[in-house]
Amino acid sequence: MAEKRPIITLTTDFGEADYFAAAVKGAVYTVNPAVEIVDITHLVPPHDIYAAAFTLMCCYKDFPRMTIHLVVVDPGVGSSRRPILVMTDDYNFIGPDNGVFSYIYQRERVNRVVHLMTEHYFRSPVSSTFHGRDIFAPCAGYVSKLVDWRMMGEEISDPVRFNTPSPAVSDKEIRGSVIHIDRFGNLITNITQTELTPERIQAGARVKVGSHEAARVLTHFAEANKDELFAYFGSAGFLELAVPRKPASRLTEARRGAEVAVIIP
Amino acid sequence: MAEKRPIITLTTDFGEADYFAAAVKGAVYTVNPAVEIVDITHLVPPHDIYAAAFTLMCCYKDFPRMTIHLVVVDPGVGSSRRPILVMTDDYNFIGPDNGVFSYIYQRERVNRVVHLMTEHYFRSPVSSTFHGRDIFAPCAGYVSKLVDWRMMGEEISDPVRFNTPSPAVSDKEIRGSVIHIDRFGNLITNITQTELTPERIQAGARVKVGSHEAARVLTHFAEANKDELFAYFGSAGFLELAVPRKPASRLTEARRGAEVAVIIP
Amino acid sequence: MAEKRPIITLTTDFGEADYFAAAVKGAVYTVNPAVEIVDITHLVPPHDIYAAAFTLMCCYKDFPRMTIHLVVVDPGVGSSRRPILVMTDDYNFIGPDNGVFSYIYQRERVNRVVHLMTEHYFRSPVSSTFHGRDIFAPCAGYVSKLVDWRMMGEEISDPVRFNTPSPAVSDKEIRGSVIHIDRFGNLITNITQTELTPERIQAGARVKVGSHEAARVLTHFAEANKDELFAYFGSAGFLELAVPRKPASRLTEARRGAEVAVIIP
Repeated sequence: MAEKRPIITLTTDFGEADYFAAAVKGAVYTVNPAVEIVDITHLVPPHDIYAAAFTLMCCYKDFPRMTIHLVVVDPGVGSSRRPILVMTDDYNFIGPDNGVFSYIYQRERVNRVVHLMTEHYFRSPVSSTFHGRDIFAPCAGYVSKLVDWRMMGEEISDPVRFNTPSPAVSDKEIRGSVIHIDRFGNLITNITQTELTPERIQAGARVKVGSHEAARVLTHFAEANKDELFAYFGSAGFLELAVPRKPASRLTEARRGAEVAVIIP
Repeated sequence: MAEKRPIITLTTDFGEADYFAAAVKGAVYTVNPAVEIVDITHLVPPHDIYAAAFTLMCCYKDFPRMTIHLVVVDPGVGSSRRPILVMTDDYNFIGPDNGVFSYIYQRERVNRVVHLMTEHYFRSPVSSTFHGRDIFAPCAGYVSKLVDWRMMGEEISDPVRFNTPSPAVSDKEIRGSVIHIDRFGNLITNITQTELTPERIQAGARVKVGSHEAARVLTHFAEANKDELFAYFGSAGFLELAVPRKPASRLTEARRGAEVAVIIP
Repeated sequence: MAEKRPIITLTTDFGEADYFAAAVKGAVYTVNPAVEIVDITHLVPPHDIYAAAFTLMCCYKDFPRMTIHLVVVDPGVGSSRRPILVMTDDYNFIGPDNGVFSYIYQRERVNRVVHLMTEHYFRSPVSSTFHGRDIFAPCAGYVSKLVDWRMMGEEISDPVRFNTPSPAVSDKEIRGSVIHIDRFGNLITNITQTELTPERIQAGARVKVGSHEAARVLTHFAEANKDELFAYFGSAGFLELAVPRKPASRLTEARRGAEVAVIIP
């Protein structure tokens, strides 16, 4: 049996046609040739830190403990925004301090956030436009080699976080929004089982987006009728809207940010 | 020399912008961190089991013996369709029992098909919408660790298969169809050298698609003239139609399913 | 600590929807299961050897020494164009002899170029349409196993090279062109710091593309104003034109090949 290797995941807005993601990988391997690099996606919409944060949130826990999650969606590259390392018991996260780890701060017990400052662990020289290759990648390589964080920078207490939009709940209604639309055209909302409880589903909750309504919250795709807009809790824990084998996004014409209302009878 | 690691390939319709493929990989590594995961493609058109079956057929044999081919094109997820393991002397295949392995059944001596039933080898809990992550990925991980199939499920004798369309042959004509169009716009047909024999090519066979005709069946691209529509046997063993450095799909306006006729003088 | 494995990178025009890239990987692993394969990109525009050469040039040096860079953009497959191995002190390059390594010849001290001829190191049989799988991939596998190049072919002295367009320089003007447009819509030119020296920038050089002008050559993105078209030296060493967080390609309507003029006061 071959041995275990440290895993580094990549989430970027580099696209797949340019050399950017490859340069990051080369820079990682130059520091530590023994890592396993796994692409999460390089198709985050350019500069969209909200989309990057959402995508990472949906899958970071599916990786083995000690995985290093590297995120490079960095519209502020070359400004004074800080490169950071976020450490929890189970994972390390590396990327720009622009809020991209907001969901991690919300969901995990964070042991510390480190401002990466030690140039010894950077590529030399550091370009002003490509910190993914010159700072984040080599630092991820060194973290995978178990370099002590105290060598790499200084602890900070004020990392940037954005407000992750949370639904408004009343007795009769839950008001949330579409936070993502996936490849199948399913609409992912920010509503979880904390708001839409099993009791409320049993009471006959209906879900509205624009002028369209999902009359049922199902537990299996297979229960839906042909062309029925229905709701269900998706694999990332959020309420989603779908049509069997068709894009709900086309039927509803909803976009990210669209309002979603759950009516509780 | 580093040592050999078990290979798991992935063929899915997850696209590349969402977290789905990454979640599958994370779930595999969680079970067996020592595997090598290779993407075949994540761009199978959504729910298109025929396209997935075709893509897998074209390359599964290019991988080393004992490779595990994991396919997740699963429109019936959450219904009663079975998760299966297909075992041949050289390869293992894991995916939903929806016909996606039809070409394998046709071309390989299958030792057994196993209905994967043992929840011990699943992720817990199993979601109703993402068996790629929760059933197929961990089972692939355990198969790569050489867990005995008898532990994982029960042999079945009735796996789902679709009819792989085969050409109709008469003395004067072979009637087939376009089964795939590749990135270069080449039209791949279901006609093989079994039907279009070297003798028939030598006799002057011409290939028609719609109102367009390829007057020659060549053995090398380089023999074709500028803007000539020509036929040849492609790298997957099928008769293909092409135009040098241009998309034949644009010239002929042919789509998947289009009829192709070989006229034998 | 796990051990180091040889790295093979892939740059192709195969796209990501077909089985081509996977077949190449399978063929590599069949020869040497211990390699690490890294995608540079599979989205080189079909048959575009200039784009492939540019992409490779931008990142080949970011990989560890002894990396093997495999390029399959091969419009002449099946003709008499030669498969070659280009050896430098630090890297090996494998691909068709069609000019795709022109920048390497220009920038590196090349120890030798080898015409790969020994069929023993090819897949058998060799198809006439897919040398990526049948010649280049297995040869890369054998090079990663340190097979002596003398076993694999014969040294040649006349590899094909294209003229890499270089800017015209006078006292008052540098005339270059756009050689690439990246995902962010940045325009990459063929002008380097050799032509546009720090002195000329300090003198107030302005950069024109079509009717649009970048009045400033900045060192950091963050110095640019909202909606300002500005110039800077990008991470690959070339002068680039950008607009903060917007695609300069849309503003300027420039395409690859567009003329770029630097006016020196």
